[in-house]
Amino acid sequence: MSYKKYNYKKIEALSKRVFKGYGFSEEDSSIITDVLIASDMFGIESHGVQRLILYYNGIKCGRIEVNNKPVIVKETPVSVVVDGNKAMGQLVSKMAMEKAIEKAKITGIGMAVVRNSNHYGIAGYYSRMAEKEGLLGISMTNTQAVVTPTFGKQQFIGTNPISIAMPAKPIPFILDMSTSVVTRGKIEVYGKNNKPLPAGWAVGADGKNAADANEIVYLTNNSDKGGILPLGGEGELFSGHKGYGLGVAVELFTSILSGGLTSDRVRFAGNIDGVSHGFMAIDYGLFGDKTEIEKSMSVYLQKLRESAKADGHDRIYTHGEKEVEAYEDRKKNGIPINDSTIKEIKEICDYLRIDMEEYI
Amino acid sequence: MSYKKYNYKKIEALSKRVFKGYGFSEEDSSIITDVLIASDMFGIESHGVQRLILYYNGIKCGRIEVNNKPVIVKETPVSVVVDGNKAMGQLVSKMAMEKAIEKAKITGIGMAVVRNSNHYGIAGYYSRMAEKEGLLGISMTNTQAVVTPTFGKQQFIGTNPISIAMPAKPIPFILDMSTSVVTRGKIEVYGKNNKPLPAGWAVGADGKNAADANEIVYLTNNSDKGGILPLGGEGELFSGHKGYGLGVAVELFTSILSGGLTSDRVRFAGNIDGVSHGFMAIDYGLFGDKTEIEKSMSVYLQKLRESAKADGHDRIYTHGEKEVEAYEDRKKNGIPINDSTIKEIKEICDYLRIDMEEYI
Repeated sequence: MSYKKYNYKKIEALSKRVFKGYGFSEEDSSIITDVLIASDMFGIESHGVQRLILYYNGIKCGRIEVNNKPVIVKETPVSVVVDGNKAMGQLVSKMAMEKAIEKAKITGIGMAVVRNSNHYGIAGYYSRMAEKEGLLGISMTNTQAVVTPTFGKQQFIGTNPISIAMPAKPIPFILDMSTSVVTRGKIEVYGKNNKPLPAGWAVGADGKNAADANEIVYLTNNSDKGGILPLGGEGELFSGHKGYGLGVAVELFTSILSGGLTSDRVRFAGNIDGVSHGFMAIDYGLFGDKTEIEKSMSVYLQKLRESAKADGHDRIYTHGEKEVEAYEDRKKNGIPINDSTIKEIKEICDYLRIDMEEYI
Repeated sequence: MSYKKYNYKKIEALSKRVFKGYGFSEEDSSIITDVLIASDMFGIESHGVQRLILYYNGIKCGRIEVNNKPVIVKETPVSVVVDGNKAMGQLVSKMAMEKAIEKAKITGIGMAVVRNSNHYGIAGYYSRMAEKEGLLGISMTNTQAVVTPTFGKQQFIGTNPISIAMPAKPIPFILDMSTSVVTRGKIEVYGKNNKPLPAGWAVGADGKNAADANEIVYLTNNSDKGGILPLGGEGELFSGHKGYGLGVAVELFTSILSGGLTSDRVRFAGNIDGVSHGFMAIDYGLFGDKTEIEKSMSVYLQKLRESAKADGHDRIYTHGEKEVEAYEDRKKNGIPINDSTIKEIKEICDYLRIDMEEYI
């Protein structure tokens, strides 16, 4: 796989054009594109324009309904329940987090739970929406089940990411993590390079540690057997049961509270999807002087960065630092996109009768 | 170390008598004892009556003030900030979670953050307080720093546990986990048995994987060097940065929001302590029919328990199941207590002029 760098403004314009091609409004195309490009800019290639093909397939088979709008089904001064109505996950999620933010600004806390949505991109996009408004933001989603519970051999839990974002200087705290030990994307890369998987990443159909990446890719694409291990790995020696528990907790805050489908019933293929999300915004002014609280967060993060480095390492990162640095780099040097993604985008453009060369 | 089983009612009476001996009221002695015994009953020996010596030392050196009461310093319809005022952590925490529950019953959500408290026992006690009231409960605490950030060699983060509890049938979901790969207690057990530590549990003063358990026990007791690894282990290969991020997130919800001391400044020795906690109660009736939501949680947990077992395993646990089974066992067969704990309790009883033999 070879990479070429593209000016982010050009990729942005192309992505907007693609979504307009499906029939999305100018505004909606901008929102969806903003989430996708944010991922590429943060260096999270797996959730950027590489996913255009996933949305293309979703729209083609009716899993994503271009003309549907999310609907509020229940609302209180601190909470909202949204039925995504099979609309694009990014549009549903932006609307839900905006409601949570609106409520947090009035009552101090706003929670939104969402059912019947679609793949929403990076979890961190939505927690950062709150962070940019001077609030503490939380974002979670369930996904198609690819993770196996401790002592199991059946995929039953999504990679179920959690993101928590909090203002701090000079760099906000942005945790954005799947509750599995690795993502499927990483396993695919090992497969393409024929590298054996480290013990503790995944189990085969017998529920035992598997080294063959391509076997795991096959199993997660075509069956519910084996699967990726939860954060902490196999069994309980390295506390795999904790990652498993976090995955179930995400399920609780997304599908269970919203009345949506649990991960074992979610599919990123065909026309059944039904992803659930959970969002929260907290005005930490509830607890004290906001400037003081931000300062104490900034001081702690700075102390962590300055703490003693392990031999052979010269840097300790805080969460969000790598993303902010990637952002600066991409802005200046462009977004690296691999040729197979470009090939897929070309296919989409041909289908939509868009001249890709006009854009990139 | 040899163990003997003791009737839980007798241990309970002895513990109450000990706390009354320090000058706590009948009611306060009952509350503290209830938290301690709940831990032993749940099979979490490390946080049960084994900790009597920790509290004894804390009271003797003025880290814990027997006569102080926690004070509410800020309050809104959805939140409360509590200054623990160096009172016993269990008393402070029960009061704070009760406030969160009270608020959740009115507005739907209640958050409590606490500073200047002391060691509060098991996180799960407080999340279960909400669960028993038909609410979703969250409990977190920071602790003395013993965990090293990814690529570091300095203890800077507490084991910072998170507990999430949610009603379900036949067994509630009770996640109660430190955000480190293991607790210090587990490392001590390896030390006592001269067993080498698995690679990925702890690092020595050079920041590299350490196998010598006694070295880690020494470092965590006497220095800020080396330390226990975050959930996910060393470096980023098994996502140690995720456990590290979760530890920082707990710091945010405890010390940062409450204006308390961050883990690097907390000490479980001397008369400086200043532990911070965070609690939340959520009435999930905000999101739909409570019975339906509980049912969907119960169904998902049951499906997990029934999902295919890895070869060589015949059971998949959901979180809280082991604790509930331990509870039934302890109630019937007694609480196993090791002889060195009994020796310590004898020392405390002698100091307080209590005849231990009258009780056990």
